[in-house]
Amino acid sequence: MATDFSDAEQPGTQRPGGRTERTRLAVLHATLALLAEHGYGELTVDAVAERSGVHRTTVYRRWKSAEGLVAAAFHLGTEDDWTAPDTGSLAGDLYEMLAELVGYFTTPGMRELPTASILAAFQSELAAEALHSFYVDRHARCAVLTTRAIARGEAPAGTSPDEVIRAASGPIFYRLFISRESLGLADARLAARATAAAAAAGVFVPA
Amino acid sequence: MATDFSDAEQPGTQRPGGRTERTRLAVLHATLALLAEHGYGELTVDAVAERSGVHRTTVYRRWKSAEGLVAAAFHLGTEDDWTAPDTGSLAGDLYEMLAELVGYFTTPGMRELPTASILAAFQSELAAEALHSFYVDRHARCAVLTTRAIARGEAPAGTSPDEVIRAASGPIFYRLFISRESLGLADARLAARATAAAAAAGVFVPA
Repeated sequence: MATDFSDAEQPGTQRPGGRTERTRLAVLHATLALLAEHGYGELTVDAVAERSGVHRTTVYRRWKSAEGLVAAAFHLGTEDDWTAPDTGSLAGDLYEMLAELVGYFTTPGMRELPTASILAAFQSELAAEALHSFYVDRHARCAVLTTRAIARGEAPAGTSPDEVIRAASGPIFYRLFISRESLGLADARLAARATAAAAAAGVFVPA
Repeated sequence: MATDFSDAEQPGTQRPGGRTERTRLAVLHATLALLAEHGYGELTVDAVAERSGVHRTTVYRRWKSAEGLVAAAFHLGTEDDWTAPDTGSLAGDLYEMLAELVGYFTTPGMRELPTASILAAFQSELAAEALHSFYVDRHARCAVLTTRAIARGEAPAGTSPDEVIRAASGPIFYRLFISRESLGLADARLAARATAAAAAAGVFVPA
């Protein structure tokens, strides 16, 4: 992936801002747009080529299949500059994080892509692995919430940052995709408070 | 649904143990079997008729569509005699409940149906409503966990039984279908302990 060829048409190379990078972004953004609009079941390499304006041979050569496209497109989510909130308290930080999550998954025009991504992971092993990698990255970026909470004395040393994120996010996704219930900011607040209380009780320190 | 006709061939009637009831169960169990094997996307009324041995005209007349079959089949889940565990502590009860959930969703041969049910709710509005109704029923059956915890002094009066179940179940489903991580009994134990600690802190009492 780090190899740089002088021929920018060569698939598999990335030169930031160069033609290959523009091609990559055009293809992966087209993949995400089609995924959001029609779902993984309808996604084809040909449709992505047409939508992106990139020659289908190029798309096939580099990404192989709809699965390959989706996996690569999910990886885009780890390339943004998202950072965890910093409000001064664990409950406050978790609330900000969850409020953003609630907005993302409930706002028409925004929710389609993340919802289609969760669904795609049921339908493709590669998509499931890519979704997993995305969350590994998000967990890592959110670890600072817990390390700061420990430094402030809000949770004991050894508290698992990953478990804090799972406990906080779980009830939000449960409402969305399991019990299929309404979801709002009050739910974000409750999950944040519950997780902070459990962290304070020392529950997230591995035995 | 409660109407009883003497003609057992009449669709829409239920006589426990009668021919109509046997037909209903044959059709709905065939629906669940096909759902587990091939998913909602492949489910057709004709396939259900063939699998159940019930005439397709009967199936079409009563259930109308694959969506109608799935919705009715999910309703079967509310007709079982499942009761919430009673171990003597909230953390213990939640652990037993979650351990059963973990087993159900991770054991090959068992996990296919519940997983396909969660997936179907993404693909069909009726399936989503039926899944929601199933969880409304499960939440109601689990409310006794919280009322007993309040009686034992493990949580303050007013603690929401529904929020306790969402907090406990959320991280399990998060691992299964969102972050796509491994899942085991240790996760059930952690989620149970975290939820019991948050309940003890009074977090689940509505403001």
